[in-house]
Amino acid sequence: MLEKLFTNLESLYPELVAFRRDLHMYPELSFEEITTPQKVADFLTELGIEVKTQVGTRGVVGLIKGGKPGKTVALRADFDALPIQDEKNADYKSRVPGVMHACGHDIHTAALLGVAKVLSEVKEELEGNVVLIHQFAEEQLPGGAKSMIEDGCLEGVDVVYGAHVMSHLPIGQVGVKEGHMMAAYDAFEIEIFGKGSHGAMPHLGIDPVVLGSQLVTNLQQIVSRRVDPLKPAVVTVGSLNAGQVFNVIPDTAKITGTVRTFDPDVRDLVEESIKQIAKSTCEGAGARVVCNYTRGYPPVVNHPGETQRVEALAKMLVAPEDVLHLPASMGGEDFAYYLQKVPGTFFNVGGASDQVGPIYPHHHPKFDVDERSMLLIGKLFISSVLHYLSDGKIKPEHMQALK
Amino acid sequence: MLEKLFTNLESLYPELVAFRRDLHMYPELSFEEITTPQKVADFLTELGIEVKTQVGTRGVVGLIKGGKPGKTVALRADFDALPIQDEKNADYKSRVPGVMHACGHDIHTAALLGVAKVLSEVKEELEGNVVLIHQFAEEQLPGGAKSMIEDGCLEGVDVVYGAHVMSHLPIGQVGVKEGHMMAAYDAFEIEIFGKGSHGAMPHLGIDPVVLGSQLVTNLQQIVSRRVDPLKPAVVTVGSLNAGQVFNVIPDTAKITGTVRTFDPDVRDLVEESIKQIAKSTCEGAGARVVCNYTRGYPPVVNHPGETQRVEALAKMLVAPEDVLHLPASMGGEDFAYYLQKVPGTFFNVGGASDQVGPIYPHHHPKFDVDERSMLLIGKLFISSVLHYLSDGKIKPEHMQALK
Amino acid sequence: MLEKLFTNLESLYPELVAFRRDLHMYPELSFEEITTPQKVADFLTELGIEVKTQVGTRGVVGLIKGGKPGKTVALRADFDALPIQDEKNADYKSRVPGVMHACGHDIHTAALLGVAKVLSEVKEELEGNVVLIHQFAEEQLPGGAKSMIEDGCLEGVDVVYGAHVMSHLPIGQVGVKEGHMMAAYDAFEIEIFGKGSHGAMPHLGIDPVVLGSQLVTNLQQIVSRRVDPLKPAVVTVGSLNAGQVFNVIPDTAKITGTVRTFDPDVRDLVEESIKQIAKSTCEGAGARVVCNYTRGYPPVVNHPGETQRVEALAKMLVAPEDVLHLPASMGGEDFAYYLQKVPGTFFNVGGASDQVGPIYPHHHPKFDVDERSMLLIGKLFISSVLHYLSDGKIKPEHMQALK
Amino acid sequence: MLEKLFTNLESLYPELVAFRRDLHMYPELSFEEITTPQKVADFLTELGIEVKTQVGTRGVVGLIKGGKPGKTVALRADFDALPIQDEKNADYKSRVPGVMHACGHDIHTAALLGVAKVLSEVKEELEGNVVLIHQFAEEQLPGGAKSMIEDGCLEGVDVVYGAHVMSHLPIGQVGVKEGHMMAAYDAFEIEIFGKGSHGAMPHLGIDPVVLGSQLVTNLQQIVSRRVDPLKPAVVTVGSLNAGQVFNVIPDTAKITGTVRTFDPDVRDLVEESIKQIAKSTCEGAGARVVCNYTRGYPPVVNHPGETQRVEALAKMLVAPEDVLHLPASMGGEDFAYYLQKVPGTFFNVGGASDQVGPIYPHHHPKFDVDERSMLLIGKLFISSVLHYLSDGKIKPEHMQALK
Repeated sequence: MLEKLFTNLESLYPELVAFRRDLHMYPELSFEEITTPQKVADFLTELGIEVKTQVGTRGVVGLIKGGKPGKTVALRADFDALPIQDEKNADYKSRVPGVMHACGHDIHTAALLGVAKVLSEVKEELEGNVVLIHQFAEEQLPGGAKSMIEDGCLEGVDVVYGAHVMSHLPIGQVGVKEGHMMAAYDAFEIEIFGKGSHGAMPHLGIDPVVLGSQLVTNLQQIVSRRVDPLKPAVVTVGSLNAGQVFNVIPDTAKITGTVRTFDPDVRDLVEESIKQIAKSTCEGAGARVVCNYTRGYPPVVNHPGETQRVEALAKMLVAPEDVLHLPASMGGEDFAYYLQKVPGTFFNVGGASDQVGPIYPHHHPKFDVDERSMLLIGKLFISSVLHYLSDGKIKPEHMQALK
Repeated sequence: MLEKLFTNLESLYPELVAFRRDLHMYPELSFEEITTPQKVADFLTELGIEVKTQVGTRGVVGLIKGGKPGKTVALRADFDALPIQDEKNADYKSRVPGVMHACGHDIHTAALLGVAKVLSEVKEELEGNVVLIHQFAEEQLPGGAKSMIEDGCLEGVDVVYGAHVMSHLPIGQVGVKEGHMMAAYDAFEIEIFGKGSHGAMPHLGIDPVVLGSQLVTNLQQIVSRRVDPLKPAVVTVGSLNAGQVFNVIPDTAKITGTVRTFDPDVRDLVEESIKQIAKSTCEGAGARVVCNYTRGYPPVVNHPGETQRVEALAKMLVAPEDVLHLPASMGGEDFAYYLQKVPGTFFNVGGASDQVGPIYPHHHPKFDVDERSMLLIGKLFISSVLHYLSDGKIKPEHMQALK
Repeated sequence: MLEKLFTNLESLYPELVAFRRDLHMYPELSFEEITTPQKVADFLTELGIEVKTQVGTRGVVGLIKGGKPGKTVALRADFDALPIQDEKNADYKSRVPGVMHACGHDIHTAALLGVAKVLSEVKEELEGNVVLIHQFAEEQLPGGAKSMIEDGCLEGVDVVYGAHVMSHLPIGQVGVKEGHMMAAYDAFEIEIFGKGSHGAMPHLGIDPVVLGSQLVTNLQQIVSRRVDPLKPAVVTVGSLNAGQVFNVIPDTAKITGTVRTFDPDVRDLVEESIKQIAKSTCEGAGARVVCNYTRGYPPVVNHPGETQRVEALAKMLVAPEDVLHLPASMGGEDFAYYLQKVPGTFFNVGGASDQVGPIYPHHHPKFDVDERSMLLIGKLFISSVLHYLSDGKIKPEHMQALK
Repeated sequence: MLEKLFTNLESLYPELVAFRRDLHMYPELSFEEITTPQKVADFLTELGIEVKTQVGTRGVVGLIKGGKPGKTVALRADFDALPIQDEKNADYKSRVPGVMHACGHDIHTAALLGVAKVLSEVKEELEGNVVLIHQFAEEQLPGGAKSMIEDGCLEGVDVVYGAHVMSHLPIGQVGVKEGHMMAAYDAFEIEIFGKGSHGAMPHLGIDPVVLGSQLVTNLQQIVSRRVDPLKPAVVTVGSLNAGQVFNVIPDTAKITGTVRTFDPDVRDLVEESIKQIAKSTCEGAGARVVCNYTRGYPPVVNHPGETQRVEALAKMLVAPEDVLHLPASMGGEDFAYYLQKVPGTFFNVGGASDQVGPIYPHHHPKFDVDERSMLLIGKLFISSVLHYLSDGKIKPEHMQALK
């Protein structure tokens, strides 16, 4: 069956490219997705798949009910875009000023729709069910995953798989990682309320520019001194803004930043330390400070068994040396929430090729990937589903020919 | 004669109030003054005074040629307003959104016009000439004084007087200061060019937020360690702006600030130190830095003889205990340029009273002063002119009655 | 044979305890060892073992030539003590004021001598040779291992094993770690040459107290910003000393510190960063700086095969749950040099027990361990030697009975 | 009479030189003076002057009772030395290792003894009394002045004069200053109690090296931001000592420093700020901190009338251009305490000349001054006494001839 499914998927390629390019030209920001979920829902509905919309507000969930009893596999693709001006030179470049699919979520979405079509055509033969999770707002805290789960998208699900295309990985390569793959992802905002004054009379004010600077400097000690050096952690201040005029000491300074950790104790320690350092740095000088710390995504922890399954399947589909053991990453991903509920794994697929040209990092105005990555994502999803549902009846060996 | 002039000035009071309130309702920003100089020029022209407009671009200079030969006295009033939203409760509050006479320059201008009218009416009796310098753009570097001087406003002038109304000084009080009265006033801009990166991957970037913070911290050492503690100096960073997004390390940080000094060697030392610290802080971390330091106004150095003259005259006009010896101020004033060319003095006149209500500092959205301060400014200008031109023939004693 | 050897070792226990306690009472500092190597050499010589002394200046190397041809296994024990005042309550406490075996090297040495005696008694049956490396100066850079290797102690050696007793690990437990076990261990010294002055006249000097403080603060950014958060690194300033008198700005400040890393690129980056930050921080203020960075021990990288061998053997000797997979440690150990030359592994053995009482950390004035740890070290050494030399003929199963 | 007194003083010169050189060879540290006060007391006793010893523990006070009724003038000289090794090349160099008259107090003492002798010889003619205050421990907080005053040395005194020889002022010059002449002089000690740990495991400790460094950096903001820039202030950290070993994080760090101010409100502000910053910097990181702030000498505030008297007299004795108006100094001097009780003035006298050679600053191991400065100090003391006691009968003109 696999061979047939793969052939069917390949024949869908022009349709997937068209769908992806349509998404690419009309991208929508996180928490502002309207037409994208509509397009996805329409596509699934047309296939006769049972569709729920507005799941967790903006998500779309399809259910392919297999003809035979069995377990339920969820596949997840995210569909939101970024506040970046598309600067690449392509006829499918974004038509929406300042908004761009600069992270490949359009690829994920189109790939999953291809999988949906192929699997729905054989649903009578499936020994179990497939849930298609089309998720909104992966790029922005608090993310869409959490509310989709709260709205029931994982009900009855036994295992979940997710994929991300990577612009720096060559097309045809697959990356897997057991255990901690991506970091917990938090945000903080600190506002310092000093006391403005004439720039020539600093003693009449409480200078929030100096306090903010001192605070940023002091925060460096969290990672350098307080955290166990064997446990990765990042504390980044992304913005510090204080004052508009060169000769006036402003009233306030505002700092925003992000924290990345793997270990929950380290996460607690960093949160507590930021609050404590903000307080002591500012209050010691007579300024008031407000520190908001927002817990974002938990770390992505891939289940060993499911990761090994995908690795084994990937080695059937591509040369074994093209299946990489990825290092952990300090980046975040709300796929983490699904993995807190059910076993599963998140893997990477290459998108770099001569066809796309120079490699630009994710979130770059010239980011792009080879669209053939959709096929490899699709095949890995399909084979994972079948391998999981058949529970051993389809052996990896059966897939050898498919390479 | 003085008595007559004072009576004439007092009878002009309603007209001065009206003129002042008109300016107050229609304030114009520094370097953007169009109708204000026009109104001033019209007023002077109507008096039959010889008027030059567009002096140094936007200044207005009137010349009252005395009927008898003698020296030439210059009187200066500035007429620009500030980018502040008027929030006071008065029917003459500013009609221009975001622009306000929040420093009393309208008072100065109306007072000087009153003086002009009174003196022009007796010009045949004057033993010398009076130059009326109506200056634009005192509030903003590089100021209007310098270009007005370069355009000839001090040609033939022997002495210059200037006044400033002060919101915290009670109406009827006069403040004088020999020697260093106000500080040299410079500006600096530092731009740090680091290297942006994902907030979770600081090692791939060069963090300008941290470097900017470190720089602000390091700049504190200039005053605390490098400058002679007996020589006043201020280094204020008025703004530090870096980054927009909490999870992205930005490419650049921008710092602006002001420097106040009296001693020219300290001024040099501070300029050099800022450049040196900016360079070493940033380049040591691999970032590029551009530091622009702009010399603004020199210090206001009042000439002892002229200051004593005004002090003596003031003590005739108000109770001796109402003539204060002011401390120096770290504020700046481009009247300094006139004093680099000719002798003279700059003095303060009180503007606080029950009539205006609570005292708000200069540049405050609710700033206001008692308009009767115009009369005291006017009388001090008139008596200084006559005393200077008469060269002793009018003794201070002659003014006793005027109190 | 193993069973016999273990029985022989156990019967030696009182002698090993006596030898250990003698070392414990008369400890010698690193690079000052005189009587300790003499005692070791005497012990080995008495056994008829071929002994070289003064290897790499103070080391002792014994060679047990097996009766049959085969490979050569090296076993290493270190024998230096620490500059710490012994404060424990035991009749074998240190007799040397301010010097103490506070890290268990006396245990290692006595254990290895026991192994030497047991193996030398059966040397005719050995299918290969055993080299006994009694090393000086592990506690202090540059360590003794490097010069002993340069002096030939690893010539002809095929594999090397080393052990460390741990005060916090319960007696009977064994810890192993494949790959990176301990960090590279470097040292740095920074001297800042400012310019002293009267404390009331900071502008006449260049303040090294402030510069030293600023430097320590700036060094925090190496770990927090410059190093990949997924690659462990420590930069610790252990001492900052500047000035003696409260009212005099001193001429100089002196900083010393240590760096710990695993990745060689990170090690290079940290060294370069320290030098660069020291230079820019100080030279930007007109001070001269001298920065000496000393590369100490490389990281301890255990060879997977040998680590697995010891793990397997340990699981025969103690309950499998008492064989732990250790996390990596930022501590350093010059056993690392041996592993750069030949395969091998370094493992830990527990020393905590009710018999010794409360657990004190290594280098603590009350540090002590259960002497029975010598037996487990000895058995692991003996079984590793035999297993390696027999090359499979003795299977782990043969050791089961020994538990 | 003055002329006669001056001649007598000059004829004493060899004796004064001998006395001074004896003190110079046998200097005694502050609060450890034993033989010095004895020598002084012996000298005065021999003159028949009424002497009190152990005044305020180690001071010596002589009283010359005038033959006629009148007011009482006090003259003060200090006699303590410094913990400095004498490195100059002179046969009268210090015989006491590590102790040296490196500030000229020996000059002051010998000069005052000369004055005592000359005045005691004419005491019957004096219209009032002269109190000779030979003070111990000027160099070290809390100083000797305070306890001598508490012990009664100013009882009945109407005015006080004091002098200091200056190594950089040419011989024959006199320096005076009305009002604030020298700063208030305080000391502080801060001890930070962190938590030591292995240098490779910073997260197990609380690093006092980093906290101490941060604290020193933060203290810079007191002068740069909190103090009115027009009011001089110095906060100097003279010592920061933390840790002994490069690879161990120590438990504690110790900071000592000095504060100089003129304005009492600024003094309060600085004290409070140091305590507040120490507390917030350390406690925010979990460390304990103890901050001791010791108020030392108040500012030296010379009374205008007495300063003008000395200035006028000096202009009779030396060329008017050799009488300088000194700038204020941030240095401290416990003469301040006398001026808190009675009017008076403190003045400087030059000690530089070709005869002494290169100028070395006070407290330098090669410090020395021209001994003829004793004569000018003596003449200024004598003429001040006579002028004050005669209350106008001796006019400055009478002294003209003396030049």
